[in-house]
Amino acid sequence: LKVRPTLGRDRQTYRIEADTFGELRVPADKYYGAQTVRSTMNFKIGGPSERMPIQVIKAFGILKRAAAEVNKDYGLDPRLADAIIQAADEVAAGKLDDHFPLVVWQTGSGTQSNMNVNEVISNRAIEILGGKLGSKDPVHPNDHVNKSQSSNDTFPTAMHIAAAKEVHEVLLPGLQHLHDALQAKAVEFKDIIKIGRTHTQDAVPLSLGQEFSGYVQQVKYSMERVRSAMPRVYELAAGGTAVGTGLNTRIGFAEKVAATVASLTGLPFVTAPNKFEALAAHDALVELSGALNTVAVSMMKIANDIRFLGSGPRSGLGELCLPENEPGSSIMPGKVNPTQCEAMTMVAAQVMGNNVAVTIGGSNGHFELNVFKPMMIKNVLNSARLLGDASVSFTDNCVVGIEANIDRINKLMNESLMLVTALNPHIGYDKAAKIAKTAHKEGGNLKETAIKLGYLTAEEFDAWVKPHEMLGPK
Amino acid sequence: LKVRPTLGRDRQTYRIEADTFGELRVPADKYYGAQTVRSTMNFKIGGPSERMPIQVIKAFGILKRAAAEVNKDYGLDPRLADAIIQAADEVAAGKLDDHFPLVVWQTGSGTQSNMNVNEVISNRAIEILGGKLGSKDPVHPNDHVNKSQSSNDTFPTAMHIAAAKEVHEVLLPGLQHLHDALQAKAVEFKDIIKIGRTHTQDAVPLSLGQEFSGYVQQVKYSMERVRSAMPRVYELAAGGTAVGTGLNTRIGFAEKVAATVASLTGLPFVTAPNKFEALAAHDALVELSGALNTVAVSMMKIANDIRFLGSGPRSGLGELCLPENEPGSSIMPGKVNPTQCEAMTMVAAQVMGNNVAVTIGGSNGHFELNVFKPMMIKNVLNSARLLGDASVSFTDNCVVGIEANIDRINKLMNESLMLVTALNPHIGYDKAAKIAKTAHKEGGNLKETAIKLGYLTAEEFDAWVKPHEMLGPK
Amino acid sequence: LKVRPTLGRDRQTYRIEADTFGELRVPADKYYGAQTVRSTMNFKIGGPSERMPIQVIKAFGILKRAAAEVNKDYGLDPRLADAIIQAADEVAAGKLDDHFPLVVWQTGSGTQSNMNVNEVISNRAIEILGGKLGSKDPVHPNDHVNKSQSSNDTFPTAMHIAAAKEVHEVLLPGLQHLHDALQAKAVEFKDIIKIGRTHTQDAVPLSLGQEFSGYVQQVKYSMERVRSAMPRVYELAAGGTAVGTGLNTRIGFAEKVAATVASLTGLPFVTAPNKFEALAAHDALVELSGALNTVAVSMMKIANDIRFLGSGPRSGLGELCLPENEPGSSIMPGKVNPTQCEAMTMVAAQVMGNNVAVTIGGSNGHFELNVFKPMMIKNVLNSARLLGDASVSFTDNCVVGIEANIDRINKLMNESLMLVTALNPHIGYDKAAKIAKTAHKEGGNLKETAIKLGYLTAEEFDAWVKPHEMLGPK
Amino acid sequence: LKVRPTLGRDRQTYRIEADTFGELRVPADKYYGAQTVRSTMNFKIGGPSERMPIQVIKAFGILKRAAAEVNKDYGLDPRLADAIIQAADEVAAGKLDDHFPLVVWQTGSGTQSNMNVNEVISNRAIEILGGKLGSKDPVHPNDHVNKSQSSNDTFPTAMHIAAAKEVHEVLLPGLQHLHDALQAKAVEFKDIIKIGRTHTQDAVPLSLGQEFSGYVQQVKYSMERVRSAMPRVYELAAGGTAVGTGLNTRIGFAEKVAATVASLTGLPFVTAPNKFEALAAHDALVELSGALNTVAVSMMKIANDIRFLGSGPRSGLGELCLPENEPGSSIMPGKVNPTQCEAMTMVAAQVMGNNVAVTIGGSNGHFELNVFKPMMIKNVLNSARLLGDASVSFTDNCVVGIEANIDRINKLMNESLMLVTALNPHIGYDKAAKIAKTAHKEGGNLKETAIKLGYLTAEEFDAWVKPHEMLGPK
Repeated sequence: LKVRPTLGRDRQTYRIEADTFGELRVPADKYYGAQTVRSTMNFKIGGPSERMPIQVIKAFGILKRAAAEVNKDYGLDPRLADAIIQAADEVAAGKLDDHFPLVVWQTGSGTQSNMNVNEVISNRAIEILGGKLGSKDPVHPNDHVNKSQSSNDTFPTAMHIAAAKEVHEVLLPGLQHLHDALQAKAVEFKDIIKIGRTHTQDAVPLSLGQEFSGYVQQVKYSMERVRSAMPRVYELAAGGTAVGTGLNTRIGFAEKVAATVASLTGLPFVTAPNKFEALAAHDALVELSGALNTVAVSMMKIANDIRFLGSGPRSGLGELCLPENEPGSSIMPGKVNPTQCEAMTMVAAQVMGNNVAVTIGGSNGHFELNVFKPMMIKNVLNSARLLGDASVSFTDNCVVGIEANIDRINKLMNESLMLVTALNPHIGYDKAAKIAKTAHKEGGNLKETAIKLGYLTAEEFDAWVKPHEMLGPK
Repeated sequence: LKVRPTLGRDRQTYRIEADTFGELRVPADKYYGAQTVRSTMNFKIGGPSERMPIQVIKAFGILKRAAAEVNKDYGLDPRLADAIIQAADEVAAGKLDDHFPLVVWQTGSGTQSNMNVNEVISNRAIEILGGKLGSKDPVHPNDHVNKSQSSNDTFPTAMHIAAAKEVHEVLLPGLQHLHDALQAKAVEFKDIIKIGRTHTQDAVPLSLGQEFSGYVQQVKYSMERVRSAMPRVYELAAGGTAVGTGLNTRIGFAEKVAATVASLTGLPFVTAPNKFEALAAHDALVELSGALNTVAVSMMKIANDIRFLGSGPRSGLGELCLPENEPGSSIMPGKVNPTQCEAMTMVAAQVMGNNVAVTIGGSNGHFELNVFKPMMIKNVLNSARLLGDASVSFTDNCVVGIEANIDRINKLMNESLMLVTALNPHIGYDKAAKIAKTAHKEGGNLKETAIKLGYLTAEEFDAWVKPHEMLGPK
Repeated sequence: LKVRPTLGRDRQTYRIEADTFGELRVPADKYYGAQTVRSTMNFKIGGPSERMPIQVIKAFGILKRAAAEVNKDYGLDPRLADAIIQAADEVAAGKLDDHFPLVVWQTGSGTQSNMNVNEVISNRAIEILGGKLGSKDPVHPNDHVNKSQSSNDTFPTAMHIAAAKEVHEVLLPGLQHLHDALQAKAVEFKDIIKIGRTHTQDAVPLSLGQEFSGYVQQVKYSMERVRSAMPRVYELAAGGTAVGTGLNTRIGFAEKVAATVASLTGLPFVTAPNKFEALAAHDALVELSGALNTVAVSMMKIANDIRFLGSGPRSGLGELCLPENEPGSSIMPGKVNPTQCEAMTMVAAQVMGNNVAVTIGGSNGHFELNVFKPMMIKNVLNSARLLGDASVSFTDNCVVGIEANIDRINKLMNESLMLVTALNPHIGYDKAAKIAKTAHKEGGNLKETAIKLGYLTAEEFDAWVKPHEMLGPK
Repeated sequence: LKVRPTLGRDRQTYRIEADTFGELRVPADKYYGAQTVRSTMNFKIGGPSERMPIQVIKAFGILKRAAAEVNKDYGLDPRLADAIIQAADEVAAGKLDDHFPLVVWQTGSGTQSNMNVNEVISNRAIEILGGKLGSKDPVHPNDHVNKSQSSNDTFPTAMHIAAAKEVHEVLLPGLQHLHDALQAKAVEFKDIIKIGRTHTQDAVPLSLGQEFSGYVQQVKYSMERVRSAMPRVYELAAGGTAVGTGLNTRIGFAEKVAATVASLTGLPFVTAPNKFEALAAHDALVELSGALNTVAVSMMKIANDIRFLGSGPRSGLGELCLPENEPGSSIMPGKVNPTQCEAMTMVAAQVMGNNVAVTIGGSNGHFELNVFKPMMIKNVLNSARLLGDASVSFTDNCVVGIEANIDRINKLMNESLMLVTALNPHIGYDKAAKIAKTAHKEGGNLKETAIKLGYLTAEEFDAWVKPHEMLGPK
């Protein structure tokens, strides 16, 4: 035995477990085993904030349960299978989160996290069955928990389960929430006519509701984009084992596992039609990340618009009043910092960066295995979570409270020179241009200038210049 | 007149044209007018290789023809409309390519390229009708060619037409071509059993056909990914005019223009359901670029694998023989540089970079207009073209000529230690491991070592170790 | 002979040249030879706009001349050497640009472009010496023009020469030009006090000159950043030949070539201290691209600020008047589209994308050679050129003509509520806040509100609230 | 009072604190106050793993101490100042890490984290002085702890301090460690001659030491690149306060704070020469991130080479034996997965993605403030930490244990066909080529083939073909 003491210098008690490399001290209160400990020793990179996302661990819980069920069908001792199922359920339910200390920056196949899961489930199942932790008896982490599996197919399966769940549980509900709030504002603001801005410069009018309808469309399409990437995420690698051939599995195993996972999650998972692609490439996650990147682009546009339209209170555009959520400044009332917009745009930038990391990882697979798996799923989950959470935060703390500053909107609208466009059919382009140029030069408004120039009467101006008739085709 | 001489110092003859800023000399042999010349003076950025992609110009030809048809329906003088249609057709057919000198780095709405098109069509139509170039009579670039249009809706329309055509005419055929060639190889190689590699290390076997089937799947999904991005690319902004309201258009104009473009191109274009989104955001192109980025990821994987599998001839993996297309070296026979793989992987890297440029441009729209339009479409078209062209080049000059080096594949296969896995059910894990460890240490092969250790006979070895039975579930 | 006719179907005349793969028809009026033609047949990717940047070709001209000089020192027949030198000078001077048809998307070592240069110089030198084109006699493209060289060391050498020249001839002068114009504006605007904006919201004042001084600093640092990346760009790979060892060169060759290139260009080139790194990695270009990326970030900030500060004329911030360079709209006077800002920000986005392409290419070298060379240099040169050109365009067509809209600036300044900060020491925080809150609620100004509330007199207000005393520490 | 109960449903006890928005319950055992609690309520984005990096908090500790010292010089009550200094030291020392719950995704100025720090130091100082937590008496978070400061200058100051420390404490030592180990291997391997590989194909020889010397050079330059970005990181924004003018500070404050921070950290911090740039742009961090991106590119190359050179054991290149750190497979001895290479390359991909996020954030500042601060520093710190940690892990668990597989290297070397190059001067190119072609075709080695063809004797071959004379110029 290389390692003997069971009471560490840190007064923690340990038990001894072994892998094929030898024995190691394992904290006595942890279910994980030697391979997990070995990984913590070999990969001191980044610290606790860099841990494997817990969503991956929970997805593994679902997968290991499904595999145990199918293995039971194929002959695994039901007593062992049931204990594995119970332990796996606890992992899936998040009851054992403290037993997964490994960081993302480990082997690129995620083998060590798969073994971490196998060890925890094995020891917990042993405990359930009254055995001794670390004995691998009667539930062996490899022979039983990992039966018919390899890290190379289970880790990508867990990646897809975790990504799909995060999309459905966090991202899409968040986007829907934002969509609905923007839609309500589009309706609320439908009759408020305001100046349009192109090139950031004054342009012809539209309604504030129309402006918001563009945001609504962006969020609606955001959801469509994410959904249209999902069919390939629903494909599971399980059953491919080490290189995609399915060596050491039984015919039907892959299909049954996928069906069981689908049943457990309520999501339409299927077995991947080509396991070689499913292990060696993670294009499905690159595709999903690309959809998230597009969502981020939409969010950046929307949040930027809202902060600029809400800028002021005196020296900005000032068309929107944003809710004030925290002290912006101890001295300036009305200084509402658009902090929710800022959080959202920071999230958007992060997602765009994450997408590049995922892209690079996805492009660098070799032969039968891509070994950027943990990094890729970390970034995809991070993007989905941040976008989903930020959508809710942005909605609840900003969008729902947005009010139109109608006085300001009307003032800008009425001062605008481009309404002169409406006079063209009545007095001709040249006179209209003369009015506009004169008003611009003298700082006057259109109506006064038009009357002063003798081109029309106040009544005619009012009859002809009607912004609300400029909002659509005729 | 600010500018008088019509014979320049460069012995070129000029005519005088004017825009609202004044008069300018226009080369006498060019159809474009003052606004185009002015842009060449104000935007000396990058030179000829940075010109607006000709696909955008041709797409404008299609759009201007469609708009003229619809305008004729709505009352535009048929004589003018027909001349515009004829001139626009010439633009679409590429007959006037020399008349579009503007670079991408101009106004971000593409206004100057829209005016370039309007000027060229106007002057060409004037010529057709026997008028004087530059007179704007009887065909005015704004009043007639640009009727019911704005740069703000026509440029994005041309972007979508150009992108969709490039996808259908270059990218998808290129990918299909590659797919079919890889598929043929997957079939050709289906019975060649080889060693698998995970983590770049020796692993259990698969067939060379299975390995290629993974590439086939990647290319198949590449096409699906691109196609699933197209529905939103088929949506056209035309009819939104300046800010999306459709001011100065007629009810039905947008729908009719989209239908006409669909008819002219044979692609399922429709009018965008929300024009505010269609002008202010180009998420559809970001989404398409994301699909192209994923295609690039797939291409990088495939091309990398093929060059590594073809590495050698003596000191590499050497499982594939790649066609020799050009002198690799004047002295070393058999030194085939995988140049097609290199071109493909360079293209892949470029597409990934282009995607970031498109992403950043897409995220920075403000209010009613995104002003990164020319940059965005340049990159999307570049990515689509490069991937399409490179797929054909890679297919014709590499994939179709790939041969399996069967001697080498068999040698590596037979030397491999991991076939020992097959002995587990017969002699147990411990003895199998002993064989493998001994063989590794002594450099021997499995069969000799197994016999030497006395664990089995030559006949038993041959009966039990059958790589071709390790290629699937049982 | 595989190819016989010398008059093609296209009525072009051809001569026959051969490489080790056989004979090919070469256009009779071109200096290039068989390997160039072969590359055009094998790499039909992207078309003319994707050609190898001419700066690389010119840099090759410099390198080939330098190598010929040094080879002459080491014994190359002076008659041949001098003819090579003359021909190489013509390449460097851009006189033979039409003879370089190859695209970037070729072999990743740039071998084919190196051979294109060798062939052109060889044939031109043969012509100078009265020989027959294509005869390789008396000047052989490999034996004489490429003597002591390999594509693997010459292409990276040409990359560094081209990049350094573009930086010195286009980028740095462009940035200096912009710097000086911004600096002049900072001085011109030093006494104009305006409202500051943080979070896009109203904040305490600063001078417009101070605001511009921030831009000046960014451009100053831009130049420093680029310069600090140059030491490693000045290192030349020449002399490393095929794998970095310098096989087939003479001791001293590398140093002499670098010194000659330095002398020819006036730039401090030296031989790379480690040729293995210089062939297998192009970290120096990744580093330079990173500096260009940072420059792009600065440009995006500056151009964005200027377009927002110049937004309006009525409904934007309107503090700056930007020069009007082209028709913004046919109807709206004062609608100045900030087109130069738009070109600059599009360039910035492109450079950021280019940087990712360079990064990915740089990271994917293997063993003794990086084979993303042409793609990498294309992007670096593109970024340098675009930033340099856009800086000049932006300066000349925008920055120098910027005027402060003093009335607007004063109006916003005086309406601002945050000047209340100055009252704190005199009437206390609570009363100051009361003034500000009341003014915000009622839409009044600070002075009127303060007086109305009875907290101070008009004289006191004027004495205490002095924006010009809020511009620095005390 | 909006909130009354002090014992929560979760059985946690609370105290009541107030900010200008009202009262909130604060956990009784925490030093933070109302603004921190409010931020946790408004920004539920991402969870604990998304917390503000602790390095930023510690840097704030250093800054707050320095500011207190300088404020004492300028008249702050020494009793208060000393308590603040003591509390700030505790923050800097990491003793109060549990009191900083805020996530990165908050206001983009980092105001809430600055207030978190102010609140914690205030309450801890109050405790030291015997006061009541939450009373703001006698140490007020704004008036005393934040004296002469604004979030807008303190947060960027903390960003620079944190980045510089991480670079010096983690990144550079990690790179030096890796450099030294690679250098030792370059020396150890200097006499091992091996085949070179270009385009992944067999090429002329070099020594294994030469190959490693390229890696050494890359790491040496990595350190230079990072160092050359530091001068601008050493510039501190402190003293600029809200918009860069330094309003509410004293002349000399900025310089003294920078000097004190320099003294406390031992790093050459100075006050930023232009505070407007220092608040509104974070180009210095973009520049640093660009350097880290280049380091990542180098790491990707090195780690990729090592895993491919170590691939096998039977079917790969097999020139290197990598240390075996954990079970690669339960059955295959000699299957060493290059897990450290995998962790390193995943880190490299992440850093490249982080760089894009930093770039996008850096480019989107507006007017007097960039509001992507927390996101930017999170990514820069993450990149520096991951690269530093991974360098140590890669060195200790891989590089130091690398052994050359000399038998394999010699075998590949001797089988190689390209050694034929050495015969050219003796028997001429044509005969040499004939030997090589024949050997390639027949699968023979050069020596046998040459003798069989009758071109030379065994003695001549041995005399002329000497790989060790092919390693440099002559």
